Amino acid sequence: AVISVLYIYLYFVHRGQESAGIVTSDGESSQAFKVHKGMGLINHVFNADSLKKLYVSNLGIGHTRYSTSGISELQNCQPFVVETLHGKIAVAHNGELTNAVRLRRKLMRHGVGLSTSSDSELITQLLAFTPPLENDDTADWVARIKNLMNETPTSYSLLIMHKDIIYAVRDPYGNRPLCIGRLIPVGDMNGKGKDNSETEGWVVSSESCSFLSIGAEYYREVLPGEIVKISRYDVQTLDVVPRPEGDPSAFCIFEYVYFARPDSIFEGQMVYSVRRRCGQQLAIEAPVEADLVSTVPESATPAALGYAQKCGLPYVEVLCKNRYVGRTFIQPNMRLRQLGVAKKFGVLSDNFKGKRVVIIDDSIVRGNTISPIIKLLRESGAKEVHIRVASPPIRFPCYMGINIPTKEELIANRPEFHDLANYIGADSVVYLSVEGLVSSVQESIKARKENENSLKTQKSRVGKIGHCTACLTGEYPVELEW
Amino acid sequence: AVISVLYIYLYFVHRGQESAGIVTSDGESSQAFKVHKGMGLINHVFNADSLKKLYVSNLGIGHTRYSTSGISELQNCQPFVVETLHGKIAVAHNGELTNAVRLRRKLMRHGVGLSTSSDSELITQLLAFTPPLENDDTADWVARIKNLMNETPTSYSLLIMHKDIIYAVRDPYGNRPLCIGRLIPVGDMNGKGKDNSETEGWVVSSESCSFLSIGAEYYREVLPGEIVKISRYDVQTLDVVPRPEGDPSAFCIFEYVYFARPDSIFEGQMVYSVRRRCGQQLAIEAPVEADLVSTVPESATPAALGYAQKCGLPYVEVLCKNRYVGRTFIQPNMRLRQLGVAKKFGVLSDNFKGKRVVIIDDSIVRGNTISPIIKLLRESGAKEVHIRVASPPIRFPCYMGINIPTKEELIANRPEFHDLANYIGADSVVYLSVEGLVSSVQESIKARKENENSLKTQKSRVGKIGHCTACLTGEYPVELEW
Amino acid sequence: AVISVLYIYLYFVHRGQESAGIVTSDGESSQAFKVHKGMGLINHVFNADSLKKLYVSNLGIGHTRYSTSGISELQNCQPFVVETLHGKIAVAHNGELTNAVRLRRKLMRHGVGLSTSSDSELITQLLAFTPPLENDDTADWVARIKNLMNETPTSYSLLIMHKDIIYAVRDPYGNRPLCIGRLIPVGDMNGKGKDNSETEGWVVSSESCSFLSIGAEYYREVLPGEIVKISRYDVQTLDVVPRPEGDPSAFCIFEYVYFARPDSIFEGQMVYSVRRRCGQQLAIEAPVEADLVSTVPESATPAALGYAQKCGLPYVEVLCKNRYVGRTFIQPNMRLRQLGVAKKFGVLSDNFKGKRVVIIDDSIVRGNTISPIIKLLRESGAKEVHIRVASPPIRFPCYMGINIPTKEELIANRPEFHDLANYIGADSVVYLSVEGLVSSVQESIKARKENENSLKTQKSRVGKIGHCTACLTGEYPVELEW
Amino acid sequence: AVISVLYIYLYFVHRGQESAGIVTSDGESSQAFKVHKGMGLINHVFNADSLKKLYVSNLGIGHTRYSTSGISELQNCQPFVVETLHGKIAVAHNGELTNAVRLRRKLMRHGVGLSTSSDSELITQLLAFTPPLENDDTADWVARIKNLMNETPTSYSLLIMHKDIIYAVRDPYGNRPLCIGRLIPVGDMNGKGKDNSETEGWVVSSESCSFLSIGAEYYREVLPGEIVKISRYDVQTLDVVPRPEGDPSAFCIFEYVYFARPDSIFEGQMVYSVRRRCGQQLAIEAPVEADLVSTVPESATPAALGYAQKCGLPYVEVLCKNRYVGRTFIQPNMRLRQLGVAKKFGVLSDNFKGKRVVIIDDSIVRGNTISPIIKLLRESGAKEVHIRVASPPIRFPCYMGINIPTKEELIANRPEFHDLANYIGADSVVYLSVEGLVSSVQESIKARKENENSLKTQKSRVGKIGHCTACLTGEYPVELEW
Repeated sequence: AVISVLYIYLYFVHRGQESAGIVTSDGESSQAFKVHKGMGLINHVFNADSLKKLYVSNLGIGHTRYSTSGISELQNCQPFVVETLHGKIAVAHNGELTNAVRLRRKLMRHGVGLSTSSDSELITQLLAFTPPLENDDTADWVARIKNLMNETPTSYSLLIMHKDIIYAVRDPYGNRPLCIGRLIPVGDMNGKGKDNSETEGWVVSSESCSFLSIGAEYYREVLPGEIVKISRYDVQTLDVVPRPEGDPSAFCIFEYVYFARPDSIFEGQMVYSVRRRCGQQLAIEAPVEADLVSTVPESATPAALGYAQKCGLPYVEVLCKNRYVGRTFIQPNMRLRQLGVAKKFGVLSDNFKGKRVVIIDDSIVRGNTISPIIKLLRESGAKEVHIRVASPPIRFPCYMGINIPTKEELIANRPEFHDLANYIGADSVVYLSVEGLVSSVQESIKARKENENSLKTQKSRVGKIGHCTACLTGEYPVELEW
Repeated sequence: AVISVLYIYLYFVHRGQESAGIVTSDGESSQAFKVHKGMGLINHVFNADSLKKLYVSNLGIGHTRYSTSGISELQNCQPFVVETLHGKIAVAHNGELTNAVRLRRKLMRHGVGLSTSSDSELITQLLAFTPPLENDDTADWVARIKNLMNETPTSYSLLIMHKDIIYAVRDPYGNRPLCIGRLIPVGDMNGKGKDNSETEGWVVSSESCSFLSIGAEYYREVLPGEIVKISRYDVQTLDVVPRPEGDPSAFCIFEYVYFARPDSIFEGQMVYSVRRRCGQQLAIEAPVEADLVSTVPESATPAALGYAQKCGLPYVEVLCKNRYVGRTFIQPNMRLRQLGVAKKFGVLSDNFKGKRVVIIDDSIVRGNTISPIIKLLRESGAKEVHIRVASPPIRFPCYMGINIPTKEELIANRPEFHDLANYIGADSVVYLSVEGLVSSVQESIKARKENENSLKTQKSRVGKIGHCTACLTGEYPVELEW
Repeated sequence: AVISVLYIYLYFVHRGQESAGIVTSDGESSQAFKVHKGMGLINHVFNADSLKKLYVSNLGIGHTRYSTSGISELQNCQPFVVETLHGKIAVAHNGELTNAVRLRRKLMRHGVGLSTSSDSELITQLLAFTPPLENDDTADWVARIKNLMNETPTSYSLLIMHKDIIYAVRDPYGNRPLCIGRLIPVGDMNGKGKDNSETEGWVVSSESCSFLSIGAEYYREVLPGEIVKISRYDVQTLDVVPRPEGDPSAFCIFEYVYFARPDSIFEGQMVYSVRRRCGQQLAIEAPVEADLVSTVPESATPAALGYAQKCGLPYVEVLCKNRYVGRTFIQPNMRLRQLGVAKKFGVLSDNFKGKRVVIIDDSIVRGNTISPIIKLLRESGAKEVHIRVASPPIRFPCYMGINIPTKEELIANRPEFHDLANYIGADSVVYLSVEGLVSSVQESIKARKENENSLKTQKSRVGKIGHCTACLTGEYPVELEW
Repeated sequence: AVISVLYIYLYFVHRGQESAGIVTSDGESSQAFKVHKGMGLINHVFNADSLKKLYVSNLGIGHTRYSTSGISELQNCQPFVVETLHGKIAVAHNGELTNAVRLRRKLMRHGVGLSTSSDSELITQLLAFTPPLENDDTADWVARIKNLMNETPTSYSLLIMHKDIIYAVRDPYGNRPLCIGRLIPVGDMNGKGKDNSETEGWVVSSESCSFLSIGAEYYREVLPGEIVKISRYDVQTLDVVPRPEGDPSAFCIFEYVYFARPDSIFEGQMVYSVRRRCGQQLAIEAPVEADLVSTVPESATPAALGYAQKCGLPYVEVLCKNRYVGRTFIQPNMRLRQLGVAKKFGVLSDNFKGKRVVIIDDSIVRGNTISPIIKLLRESGAKEVHIRVASPPIRFPCYMGINIPTKEELIANRPEFHDLANYIGADSVVYLSVEGLVSSVQESIKARKENENSLKTQKSRVGKIGHCTACLTGEYPVELEW
């Protein structure tokens, strides 16, 4: 079995479009990393030449950056590589440290100059730095990783590459996702027996949706707090760093609502199924007398199908997406400023003329997308337009890796929110409750736990299960440091 | 009222991605055209600078090229501009001339050197050339256009710009689409009365879907054979060149099946509605005992919803589109050659595990897309997979502007077609009949004609209505010349 | 022997930096031209891929464009290719037609639409057009070329490629240069006998300086009015079209003064030698009491060395060229606007502190380059600065292919010219006389003619020898038409 | 007076073409640096947008990289910026540390992860790191710089920017150049009194040639070991770190021979004058009976003029430079491989046919440039070709910042060197002696010292004057550590 983490990041474009990078290792020398990084989308950053340069072995880690903290600059591109006393390490990080300011100061006080504003450089230097170093003749990377985890509770999913080993790490709260896939032997794929042992191995990814694309299958999640060592021969749990007594895990609920691709699996369930359950729950919480249910394509379609089925109303398409919008060349006169939404969608007016329409949306952040859509539907003949939102209103900033607009910009914090239906021009508008969302998310997790004995062992290691709903409720899983 | 044909082509990306161009006129001097053309997508060809350069007035024509005849080179980019004795003309052409070879020879014999292999240069030089020229002191562009139409029966939709006039022309068979939109005054758009008369005017487009995007509304189609003059003040029919006695019109049926966007209107009906009717007709022609109906996203969704509704089966999503595939950086080993389809889609396996699935596809051209999808669905747990195709098999080449693979490549002409279900791995596969397709297309056209007296006048000008089904039946609307 | 015109244009960058193009022929089919053209410098237009595409044979023509008439656009890039009744021809043209307006009108009246504003398209269409065509079953390209030459007297040097033949043509006045080189067999180059017959052949070029660069040697000039046919086997004079009785030839004297590279050979003499003779003549016409002679690098160095030698003064460098100026990033404040010259040169002040300096320049067009140089030299310690210009003042526009500023811009037509020394800040300034220039140019041509009997034959074909000094005297070699 | 170091680096292209960068400071906050860096030439790295972004004040440092140690990668681009406990610093470094390996290990042992292989990051981290830090409440940058200088003797010229101060530092041996210029008030430039006080200030540069280009004048050199503080108000010497007792200074003699621009001033003398003296010295050491003296343009021209003057032979041009060589598009057949030199130069054969030629070259490194030139001259008619080299043969590697080929590649270390004239095809070849070079360099320095009392003070601070001739003699100024 050969470790092959290289291909995976290709499918992560939806998780970060600001920059991309790959580091590969020849698996023997700790000096022989190959690095290619750049600003922009993967297709812009990599070409045949740069990929060829990286092909020193099947071992590597990649990253696509989605900016939260840290200015958007080439220097912040991941993975980070530093040379330490024990050779080079490469680090890819997803998340945001809640105590970054204190840690930066600590490192600088020790005499380390920091060359970026990124939390990920911080993590990398903390791994290089960990004392005691004077007698540190053999590197104990696990001890260094555990020290790092003791310094900072959340949030981070990490890949750390050193020579021929990749460490996969998730913070004790499990705030950011990370899962492991197994490459299917080629022989098994075409049903004729193995014929190419070279292509077996392991892959690690934020989302399981990427596995299918490279001929791998879902193996399991990295647990909250777990340090997994992935080598040429096996996948091995080195340790599970616990949370403070009583703290539940805190996987980001926003991944279910919006961020992840619907075919990804978190906590044993497909994201698509959670979204459909949210639609069903919304139909229970906020039914409406109407002729048809539809959606703003494409992310709210599972919820819309769930809502339609629960209500017994037909699911009908009212908008078609214009796949080729691209840059706008239109001079900014008054006419054209009004056309923003119209450029993104075509209207299937024959499908809803004279009808009462329920539109399911997955979230309303600033409120400036849904309003012109409602206007468009009415102008094209809709008799009534009711909005049902398959998630609760966002009210609070995220400090753990999701780039949410400022509190002032969020529609739920603005005066207009008190008369939202009127403000956006809808006949009615209702959000899913926080309880409804949490139950839609946790329903099958709980059911599974009760039924499956095999999970009991794992449960004890995972501890109490919870979800981070900070952006909805303001209740953060850890105390925030400044 | 100001003529404004400039913006429209932005939304034509789905109709041509090989090259793009715009020519604008200041409306006064016949020498003052501004031209910008280039290879590739619109967003690549145009930027703020090139658009600014073009803004000499609100008058212009644009083009995106989809290569049929003519090599893919910058010189073939449209619109074509030539200087004639009576000033410059700019010409944009959609279609392909069935007697191009003879016309090229005729022009060259007259001493005209042709600098491209494109039918569109041919049309442009024919307009410049038309004799008698010796006493031609005032240009009679309508006579020149009619001469052109007498030289070549089909297929062409044309925009011809000269000074402050745009001529919109459709060939007598109406093979390629062309329709007119009216810019909605800004005041009407925001409900507060007109406040900006500058932005009124007319637009012409291959597909009506583009009108919404620029704040225009559908006005009417250009009729087969019609020469429309669009000026600052009005839209005026100059003439309708008839077809040979008894010949029906021959609008391309492939536009309904595949090429056009679903929100476009042809012959008074929305493309989406035709596709849904095809799905319903398919349910009548080829029902199947199954648990759910689904589709290969996104083009076959209307047909799938029609099929599901007619059968009374639930419509369920089984695949989700990976929107960010882009270039592939994967080394071509055996594993990865098998992954083509998997890279384009995610599998929503929870939705269909253990179920009998009917997949509606819009067409099967070479057969190499559907086969791995079926395999993927089976591997992910589908109990049965039945394929229903919402159009008849393509068997013949198109010489009128649609780029269809060679006869040898078409699945319907290959030996495998005789046992297609087995070849692609489906439990069953059935195509829509040609009669079923034609009746789905013509049903509402005929109904409308019978019911609406107001259409009688137009009918007499349009003549007998038919559709070009040459690629399905081999019956071409005109004799082909070589 | 294989014809190889392909490589040559590489070295023509100094003759045209606006666009570049190559057309190659496989030498067999008249349809099989390969074309690559683009805006900008050769290195920008061509890369390994485009060159590889062009390599269908060793036969081709190239062009770099230096804009005179015709707007700077891709469509004006040469060579032009058109398809005629007798196959494709490719045409590369250097020069400018003095009766272009009349010829355009003539072609358009015949019904030819012209797609560019370039004289070179005009030439191409005239070659395609030439009647009588009705019975024109075999193309007589020589007759067509002669017809073209009868239609327009000057100025043009042409390469016309058809199948496996290249015609090299110079207008009857010989206004623009054109010469032929012979590829040296590789064996002869390394002194070990021929080992690669494939690389022998002929090249044609505006300037002989390009021959060395590709392993060719100077063979001879194309004569004024001569039509040379270059085939796989030989170089053959087809005809020499005469000038009107009594008209002398009119090779552009500006080529000697400024445009050509010093190592090129025109009319049997090296340009460098002519420039040095101009410096010597200038020393006779305008001596000055001074300590040293120098130059503005690099074009006036031959004249400066000639002047210094004739005067018996030392030649000393006072400026060194800054080879890496490139784009300027400096914000346009007052300081930096004054620094234009300083950015181009470094000052070798130790070489001239306290000395009286004579600066030889090759021409003063607008006067805004020499003035700050004089200021710079004075500020760096020069005691006196005298300017001697190795050519007469330019006073008139060129209509034959050299891009000279408008009459109003030329320093010699401005009021400042009456007190030029004061205006530019020099202690004195003297130009070479027209007679001095002409005698410097013609001295060795005349000497050679008198001495060499072998030249008598050629002389009779060339007719009376003269030079076009229109930009200096306003006497144009032909009547100008508008 | 405002500090303005920004513009200067523009003129350093000849000192580094691998990468370029600028960092600017707003002069108030230590956090507000603006950074723009990139691979390639300055014109490629910077455009109007990036320059605009940098314009936060008139304060900044820039760098162009010329790779010696460190792989050619974006991460090695300078200036380096790190955040320290006392704010950000930016560092630009020219040179190479002779004890880099030991210093890297020392830093990593302390727990600092190093992200590049560059000596310049090392310097930056050493400045951030310097202990004692625990009680380090106010940054003492001078103490940190002195500590750095104690850690590493050579070679480095540094610019260190912190808030509104720039420190200019030269290593105690003065191995790399660094000098200070004063911006001339605009009023003084145009002789009408000051009108723009904003543009006054100081600039620092490796070479004084850059000063003229931005309207500055040479002020003085930074002395070996000197730490200069440049602020808004003045230029102030903070300290001069001495060399070990008895060690002479060791300015790189290669700067005079080859690297620097001829109009730069080092140690009070113009580089051009040194090169001319080398030519004169060479005429004394190695005269030859010949007809003319010439050079391989352009770098050896001063030496050639010196040689010619001393010998009393005429200076004549034999080659002209082809300024537009650029990329080669020629297919690699045998013919064209031989043409490398011919593409770079044109031959002025009329100037030397039948003559005995002395060619002065500035250095012969690998011997593969001069050989084909000699062949070219002979083929073009030279009767004899004698080579005189205006510097001694290079025999040893440089570890202090000059990228010299490996010992094996150097012509002086190869067997062919014993019969060099025959090997390169010359009639004779003689190098300047090491003593001749050193005396040509030191002659005027010594003369000046003896004559000028005002220099005595400075002399005492500079110590014994010497030059690094390690590449010629193998005698390195400091012991090399590995």
